[in-house]
This record gives sequence, structure tokens and C-alpha cells, in this order.
Amino acid sequence: MQYRTQRTIEFHHTDEAGICHFSTFFLLMESVEHEFLRSLGTSVITYREGQKIGFPRLSTACDFSSPVRFEDVVDITLRVDRLGTKSITYGFTFTHQEKLVARGRIAAVCCLSDPGKPLKPIAIPADFAAKISSAQELSDAKSE
Amino acid sequence: MQYRTQRTIEFHHTDEAGICHFSTFFLLMESVEHEFLRSLGTSVITYREGQKIGFPRLSTACDFSSPVRFEDVVDITLRVDRLGTKSITYGFTFTHQEKLVARGRIAAVCCLSDPGKPLKPIAIPADFAAKISSAQELSDAKSE
Amino acid sequence: MQYRTQRTIEFHHTDEAGICHFSTFFLLMESVEHEFLRSLGTSVITYREGQKIGFPRLSTACDFSSPVRFEDVVDITLRVDRLGTKSITYGFTFTHQEKLVARGRIAAVCCLSDPGKPLKPIAIPADFAAKISSAQELSDAKSE
Amino acid sequence: MQYRTQRTIEFHHTDEAGICHFSTFFLLMESVEHEFLRSLGTSVITYREGQKIGFPRLSTACDFSSPVRFEDVVDITLRVDRLGTKSITYGFTFTHQEKLVARGRIAAVCCLSDPGKPLKPIAIPADFAAKISSAQELSDAKSE
Repeated sequence: MQYRTQRTIEFHHTDEAGICHFSTFFLLMESVEHEFLRSLGTSVITYREGQKIGFPRLSTACDFSSPVRFEDVVDITLRVDRLGTKSITYGFTFTHQEKLVARGRIAAVCCLSDPGKPLKPIAIPADFAAKISSAQELSDAKSE
Repeated sequence: MQYRTQRTIEFHHTDEAGICHFSTFFLLMESVEHEFLRSLGTSVITYREGQKIGFPRLSTACDFSSPVRFEDVVDITLRVDRLGTKSITYGFTFTHQEKLVARGRIAAVCCLSDPGKPLKPIAIPADFAAKISSAQELSDAKSE
Repeated sequence: MQYRTQRTIEFHHTDEAGICHFSTFFLLMESVEHEFLRSLGTSVITYREGQKIGFPRLSTACDFSSPVRFEDVVDITLRVDRLGTKSITYGFTFTHQEKLVARGRIAAVCCLSDPGKPLKPIAIPADFAAKISSAQELSDAKSE
Repeated sequence: MQYRTQRTIEFHHTDEAGICHFSTFFLLMESVEHEFLRSLGTSVITYREGQKIGFPRLSTACDFSSPVRFEDVVDITLRVDRLGTKSITYGFTFTHQEKLVARGRIAAVCCLSDPGKPLKPIAIPADFAAKISSAQELSDAKSE
């Protein structure tokens, strides 16, 4: 499945080389992940039985193909690459005017995330996993 | 070779899960890379014959092992993993109180970086490469 | 005149107190200023006769009334408080669900902004000033 | 009293105008405030009787006099301008090579800051206020 959206490169995203700073891509990947989850009617942060559940990052990476600059409007696609029992891996593609800008990846693990307590990995709640699965199936049906 | 330094986790590095936001590790890796280059008497940005030379990022990644929090003092080591003709790859290890926090990697390519012009890959200038090589040799001699 | 828009509080905007970090408001004010200028068909960065013209900040301030949190959608209004010969002052109001969140202000001065050269204040170009003036008049007419 | 420290302008602090982005000054002011509090043996975040106490910002401002650039080392002084019952106001001066860069101000209010609960203003704890007062007196004695 693919979730598609856009982001504008802001002035504060740029650096003195005149291009979007590489760290921005991680902020945008996470922002798009959260927008995708809202589009499914949920959030990266949920509360169940008084406990906060979040998805701290396990690993992340990004490969850069061509730079973008202030006020460029970047097309971003998100795919769910893997939905595991406790973790999800998202893949991202950034393009600008159909030219590849960057490809990235975020793997996140479902955890009890109450501030002040240690993070504790747990199974992804069934209804959260179901929303992601049904989005995948819907998308697969559309692309047939 | 290993360059060792420290950084304090700032309040603005934290997020509402109470931990250092994952994007911060990319800012810290770059900050330590630049501090390392200053320790060699050079900079990630140099000017030669009126042209600006920089090292835009090709790819980067980070794996997260345990969270750090506001005011934690993090030990960071930088290694030069590969010194190529046009690119350099740095590896980073973050620890807190001797516990592994994260491991990361940045690959950067030497480029003409004049703002407003396209980035153009070039061979790493000989004196810049020599400084990195001699730091490696010095470090290898010390560790024998 | 008032330009109205919205922004969503991102996860990376939050801090370990669970609220949007105060520095975010300055990023959002600037982002809205630039969106406003695009809505007038111009940009905070323009090029004239091969020279880069920008608006570095002279002073800025923000007063905070109530906190906002992850995924809050904030209503933001921009007003042009003063259009001078060389400088512009913008005022911003942030509300969430009609409750006042913050009021801010940015004063910026028109400058030759070529990277590597000192910033040099200049008169705001006539066509840029005219766009801002006509937006003001249009808005005043609407509100009569 | 004056607390003096330094910060290096990082690459990610810069923008495409080639200068340190104005939002950075707010991050640096807060970072210096927290370093000052650590120098007194305390922190901007403390816990008393199981409750988290913090200092959310009431208002902040900064006036910019001259730009700084990548790798500039900036001298920063912090003064306690006002120690009230519930709030503290800090003033900051940024200089580079003895040239004024910026002057800023942060007013913060002491609050119960447990994540997930509303912020609740309280009197500054007596021992916290005493540390700030004694630092002021020590400094006044030195400057006589």
C-alpha cells in the first residue's frame, strides 16, 4: 500500500550549503507516518487502561539522491514494509518534480511509554494492527 | 582510530515520551564529525580557489538500543570507517554510563557546494585526505 | 489585514513536559510569514539583477498563554503590523479551539543577502511593498 | 550576577542565507539557563513529593544586532533580571569577538508539570530560590 502526501521545504530546514539539511528527512518521515496513522483513525500515541502506548524508533536510515531547496514541494509516499507482532517498518520515497530525492526507512517498536518509566515492548494492540492490515488490503485491491 | 567526545541531552532534544528524540542523534553525529575535523585543523567547509567545498550526505543510518533523557551526558566515539577517493564514511557509537545507546553511520561525498549551483562531486583534496589518514595512523600506532 | 492558516503540532515539536516546545512558535511564525508571501505571488527570498534579497530578522518575541500538545491543530493569524521603507513587522495570534495559545511578533529588515557577503539593508523593492499594501487594502475593504 | 559560557554555531543552525537561523538563539538561551542551574547544583526539572516541577516559558524575546555563522564561537552571558515569587526572568547577551550579536530574554513560571495534567503555577521552592539568590549575592560581592 502507499500513502501519498506532500511537504514544503521550510526556510529553517535549509543550511548554509543552500539545501535542505539531511536531518529534516527524519522529521518529515515521522510527520508523514503520524499523518498516515491519523488517516486510519488512530495515532502513534494511544492510551489503553490508563497506560500510554507509543512506538519508539528501533532503527532508521535514509539515502540521498538529489538535494531539495527552500519552498520546494516534495512528494512523499509511505509504505508499510512489514507489520510484525511488536514492530512496524515503514518505507518512504521522496520525489521532487518526479525526480528521486531520497529513500528512507523507519522501524518502530510498540511500547508502554509512560514518561518516567522504562520503555517496555508489547504486542501491537489488535485493533491498531487491524487498521494497518485493512489499509494494506484496500490498497492491494485498488492496485489489481 | 577513535575520536571521543561528549554531549549533554538538551531539553529541546526531548519529546513527550520523555526521551531524547531520535532525530537528535543525526544532529549530534554531524556535530561530532565537525568537531573531529576541527581537531585536525580543518573544517567540513573549506574554500579553494574561490570555490566552496563541502561534504553533503549520501546516506545515513542509526540503530537505537536504549533511550537517553534530559541532562544525560552521552559519550560519543567517531571512527573513520572508510576514506575513499570522493567519499568518507564515519561510524558513531553513543553510550551512557557504559550502556550502549545507539550506533550510527554517515557517508558523505566531497562536492563543490557553492550556494545556487548544483552540487558537483570531486576528489577529496589531498591535504584534507592526508589529515584524516595521519590521524588514523597515529591512532593505530597508539593502539599497538 | 489578516491571513489565516493552520498548523498541526508534530511529535518532534513536543518536549518532556508533554507540551509543544516554545521554540516551535518561532518556526511556525516564520513558516506562516512565508506562506503568506507565497499567497501574494512572491517569496521572502527573491533575486534581482543577480542579487539575492532576503529579510533577516531584527527582533522577535512571543508571549505564551496556554500550552498545546501533540496533534493539536492550531489556528494562526498573521497581520502586517507595520510596512516601513526597509522593514516589515508581522504580528501573529495562535489559538486552539478558540482559546488563546500565544501572541508573537517578527520584525524583519530587507537586505542584500548573498551568502558569503555581509548583509546590507536596502529599501523594500516597490513591487514587493505594493503586493503587501494591496493585500492590506483588499482586506480592509472586505472588513468594512 | 552574570554566568558566562560559550556555544559553537553548528552546521544545522545555519540557513540558506549563510547565517545562524534566528530560532537557534532561543535554543541556546534555554541551554545556557539549564547549564546555569546545573552550576548551582539544581535543574530546571526537579521532583518533590512525587511531583514534577518545571518552568514553562511565559514570554521570550530576542533582538538581533549582527549575524553569526557556522563554527563561530559565541560568548553568552546570563543574568537573573528578576526573581519573583512564582517566576524568574533571565537576560542574555550574545557576543562574537566582542561584537554584539543579540540580546534576549526569557521569563518562566514555576509550575507543577506532570505530563498529562494541566500546568499549575506554584511558588518557586525555597531552596531553589535560595540557590539563585546566593549566586546573585556572591556575584555582587565579587563585582564590588
